[in-house]
Order: sequence, then C-alpha cells, then structure tokens
Amino acid sequence: MAPRKQQEIFDATLRLAAERGYDGLTVEGVAERSGVNKTTIYRWWPSKAALLGAALVESDLLGFEAPDTGSLRGDLVALVEGVRRLLTEPPGSDIAVAALSAAVRHPELDARRFFADRFAREREIFERAVGRGELKGSADPMLIVDLLAGAVWMRAVFRGSPVDDDFPAEAVAAVLEGVQIL
Amino acid sequence: MAPRKQQEIFDATLRLAAERGYDGLTVEGVAERSGVNKTTIYRWWPSKAALLGAALVESDLLGFEAPDTGSLRGDLVALVEGVRRLLTEPPGSDIAVAALSAAVRHPELDARRFFADRFAREREIFERAVGRGELKGSADPMLIVDLLAGAVWMRAVFRGSPVDDDFPAEAVAAVLEGVQIL
Repeated sequence: MAPRKQQEIFDATLRLAAERGYDGLTVEGVAERSGVNKTTIYRWWPSKAALLGAALVESDLLGFEAPDTGSLRGDLVALVEGVRRLLTEPPGSDIAVAALSAAVRHPELDARRFFADRFAREREIFERAVGRGELKGSADPMLIVDLLAGAVWMRAVFRGSPVDDDFPAEAVAAVLEGVQIL
Repeated sequence: MAPRKQQEIFDATLRLAAERGYDGLTVEGVAERSGVNKTTIYRWWPSKAALLGAALVESDLLGFEAPDTGSLRGDLVALVEGVRRLLTEPPGSDIAVAALSAAVRHPELDARRFFADRFAREREIFERAVGRGELKGSADPMLIVDLLAGAVWMRAVFRGSPVDDDFPAEAVAAVLEGVQIL
C-alpha cells in the first residue's frame, strides 16, 4: 500500500478513536472516513485492535524524533515539551489520550509497542549524555523517561491541571539535580 | 446512609467498573450487586458518574494514608510502594486502572477529586521533610509526587512491564539525589 494511503488510514483510525472511543471504533468507519475499501484494510490489519495498534506506532500524527540540542538538560526539556504538546494540544491530545487510555483497557492493542518504539529512539539522548560525561553511572535511562513523561501524564491528564510553560524545565531540574539537601 | 452500606455500594461500583468498563457500568447493576434499592442510590448520587467519582475518593478499596517513617526517603519509598501495589496487585489494580482510565475519557467523573484528595494527605510528608531540613527550598511537592507516581503508572500500565522490588528505592533515589554528574 502507498505510504500516503496508509497514513490516511491511520489518521482516520486515530481520529475516529478520539471521537467515538475504542468501543465506537469500527473498521467500517475507518473505511468510510479514509475512502479505502474495507476488505483492503482487513487484508493489512486483521482487526480494529491491530489497526489502532499500528496507527499508534506508525502514524505521523504521533510522530516522534529524539531531540539533539547539545546537552542532556536541553534534550530532556525538549522531550518533556514534546510530551506536554502531545497530551495537551488538541486535536493531537484528544487522539493520544483516547488511544492510550483505550490501550490500558485493551491489551490486544499492544501499547507496549508504542512505548518501546519511542524508547528505542530516546536512548540516543542518554548515549550522547554518557559520552559528554553528564550522566551518573547509576542512572537508568528508562527510569528517567518514565519519571518525566509520567509527570506530564499525571499533571495534564489525571489532575486535569494546566501544564505551564515552566513545567518542563522544572521537572528536568528536579530529576537532574535532585530535590534533597545533600 | 450507614457508612458500611455506603462502602458496599462503592465496592460494587468499583468492581462492576473493573469487570464491565465504564460503558457497562449501570446504577441498576450496582443496585443488584449491593442489594440496595436503585432509587435509594439515585437519591444519594444522581448519576453513575457521580457514583463512580464518589467511590474513587471514598471507597476503602482505594484507601490511602500518608506514610510517616521518620525520613523523606522512607516516606517516598513507602508512597511509591503504595502506588505500585495499587496499580499492580489484583483485584485492586483492575479496579484502579479501570476507574482511572474511565476518568480520563469522562471528565464528569471528576478524577481530579481523587488526586486532590490524595495530595492533600501527601502534603504532610513534605511539611515534615522541610521541618527536618531534608528538602531544598526550590522543591515542589506536587511535582515530586507526579514524577514518582507517574513513573509507576508508565512502567506498570503503559509499558506493561513488571515493576520490580528495587523500583521504588531507585525512583526515589533518582529524584532525591538527581541523575546528573554535578
């Protein structure tokens, strides 16, 4: 299938999931919205779960590139700013929040792939930081990502609070420098 | 209503939400499961959203008391261990994950109350830490809670990875001491 057509299918899938929730998402609906024949869609993705799972990882709407600003602090602030945008700026945020909360209730969506795929790309931030001598030997890159991305999720989605402009730099400073008087 | 009866209603509400999802939750189902008349339930909670919102905050199943171990590190490790239990040990974890992910899609549930209520109780951890001279003046208690609780959520729910026994102490060490070479 042409990559452009594929992106249109993913786009329709994510938008329908955001509008109707996972229960309201159907391959028929995606066919209608994207103008692609239902049987063609089924040939590529055998179920709506497979389709939404693929869309999470492969759609340009949720696209992700690891920042490379020249410092660990700069990269992490850019990373947190990206998560903040993803979770707070509509229409992308409606899509991300709907798809990710559906993934929690539907393990067949395999949201792990989404996070594993992102983390594979985030790794280079930490490899460069180690090369520059910025990161403690004991530091665990996945833990750092989970602390920072999880904080945005808690603030924006669960607390429903505004995530203000200072939040990314403050969250990164807390994790880089620590909050304890040493 | 007798507190015990109220707890039975909340219990039935949370378990049904976990079994059937929010869409499958009905006040009728809660009435049946708890043996309390439907009209009595409606007199106290005007909708299933109000009922589930109240159950999140008031049910003993999701009960929470701030730890008081004598040190900031000990309190935070206990806090993370509590979140880890809440999100990974069934049947409590099915309930918590179902209810909280429903809350994401249904703002009328007012999950903010659940997090605001917990945070009001977590505050004392930080007040005691300031009193003991353990916490930097710049440290933001809500940010610390969101980093730590968010990391457990990311690891256990989104990545679907085991949260091993060392995780609480490692997450707390990262936030207390920082991960950067200073």
